[in-house]
Amino acid sequence: MGFCFGVKKSVSLAQDTLKEKKDNLYMLGSIINNPQVIEYFAKEGVKIVDTLDEVPEKSTIITRAHGISPTILKKAYQKNLSVVDTTCPYVRKVQKIAHYLYEKDYFIVIYGDKKHPEVLSLLDTIQNNALVINSIPEAEGITIKEKIGFISQTTKNIYNFYKLASALLNKTEELRIFNTICKSTTERQRSVLELANEVDLMLVIGGKESANTTRLAEISENQGVKTYHIETKSQLKCKWFHPKDKVGITSGASTPDWITNEVIDKLKEWYT
Amino acid sequence: MGFCFGVKKSVSLAQDTLKEKKDNLYMLGSIINNPQVIEYFAKEGVKIVDTLDEVPEKSTIITRAHGISPTILKKAYQKNLSVVDTTCPYVRKVQKIAHYLYEKDYFIVIYGDKKHPEVLSLLDTIQNNALVINSIPEAEGITIKEKIGFISQTTKNIYNFYKLASALLNKTEELRIFNTICKSTTERQRSVLELANEVDLMLVIGGKESANTTRLAEISENQGVKTYHIETKSQLKCKWFHPKDKVGITSGASTPDWITNEVIDKLKEWYT
Repeated sequence: MGFCFGVKKSVSLAQDTLKEKKDNLYMLGSIINNPQVIEYFAKEGVKIVDTLDEVPEKSTIITRAHGISPTILKKAYQKNLSVVDTTCPYVRKVQKIAHYLYEKDYFIVIYGDKKHPEVLSLLDTIQNNALVINSIPEAEGITIKEKIGFISQTTKNIYNFYKLASALLNKTEELRIFNTICKSTTERQRSVLELANEVDLMLVIGGKESANTTRLAEISENQGVKTYHIETKSQLKCKWFHPKDKVGITSGASTPDWITNEVIDKLKEWYT
Repeated sequence: MGFCFGVKKSVSLAQDTLKEKKDNLYMLGSIINNPQVIEYFAKEGVKIVDTLDEVPEKSTIITRAHGISPTILKKAYQKNLSVVDTTCPYVRKVQKIAHYLYEKDYFIVIYGDKKHPEVLSLLDTIQNNALVINSIPEAEGITIKEKIGFISQTTKNIYNFYKLASALLNKTEELRIFNTICKSTTERQRSVLELANEVDLMLVIGGKESANTTRLAEISENQGVKTYHIETKSQLKCKWFHPKDKVGITSGASTPDWITNEVIDKLKEWYT
């Protein structure tokens, strides 16, 4: 499926920055959750760091596509850093919606992974005034609220989002639901669902830490299809395949085409 | 269960009006959907009419608890009529919410009965800019909208309301749901659901045109309990009952206590 719009934009912005200056260029966490892409930037001289403490004053930092927390952004400016903000426009939109709901006094519920960088920066946008849930029992456990605003991490499962929204219906007089799962995520999930019904085995290619890639593997597995989530061709194993198998292949939003093509070439090498 | 808050208020306002003036007092449609109550007002001298054309200038009109359409209200003032507005506060609240959604450009979906007086006056509040639905297929047939506001007639089934809301989830990026089913309706529905599991037979007492009463009968029937919807004791039939039956009794929001008590007394007369 190739890079999604947001990843394409973030990576290309980072590459443009790289062309302009090689020195004192820092990346604050992985720009996208794909180790091979991070490796590429590291080789080009970008220093990957976990916190601002590791960044000297007046350097340039590249943010993650998953968004930057306002608190960290403030610190960066205090340190006189130049900030190349590669936040995905869809992630930025969720932050805006969350902030709006926060100002309008909604009890905010986020469908997301509590420790995912997108959720962390989102929470910081609304000073942690939200409940992050990931399952129906968590939704059912919420006490009655006057009004609830429900949003999602951009890369979650659309079908589960609907189920959770339904579970919130009897928790409030006003339930305001913004489907903030990005179109690309939804489209990939729909595609893998269709594909799963046509194949004997599924390969999902992408970073192990990539939320959207992991979701694709989950959806495929839930259809009862034997599914392997791999990062590169080197993880392929002959023993997974019977020669007559119909193999489905999909990839996450942060998986570069060259990695997917290498997997396809390897399979061709083995079976044609 | 007795009159609900809104009905109690409307009927008492009409009675107060009756004390002040007997002449030229008109009721524009049934104040509540209970024929025995209407009969009472007619006997007291109130003239029940269907349209304003039947009302002479400078008379007094009593509105329905289900709300009055702004168009009709305007006509009434043009005719120099005094208006005793007995609209239920909960119905008025739905009208306010609908008007707000209309001004904010939501595509408005109403769960309701297309010809129910409450829905008609609600539709007039928003110049008919809404889709009234009553079933899942109708919800599923809606094309994708930018944002949808979903509300309900105050007397509809809360369980169906949730089901319809769920069916709307994939129709829009923003779904804003206001649970406008009134507390009294919900409470009556919960009670009849519980009661249905404990009895052999259910009597639902109230006007045949009363939406909320009809709903109680539906819920009871859906639980597989033999259910009779009657207006008065005169409709009771001995053949419905076995002497050892456990009989459940409930009544609509517009059913006066004296009618319910008469039914109970009749049963006692027959079986004790």
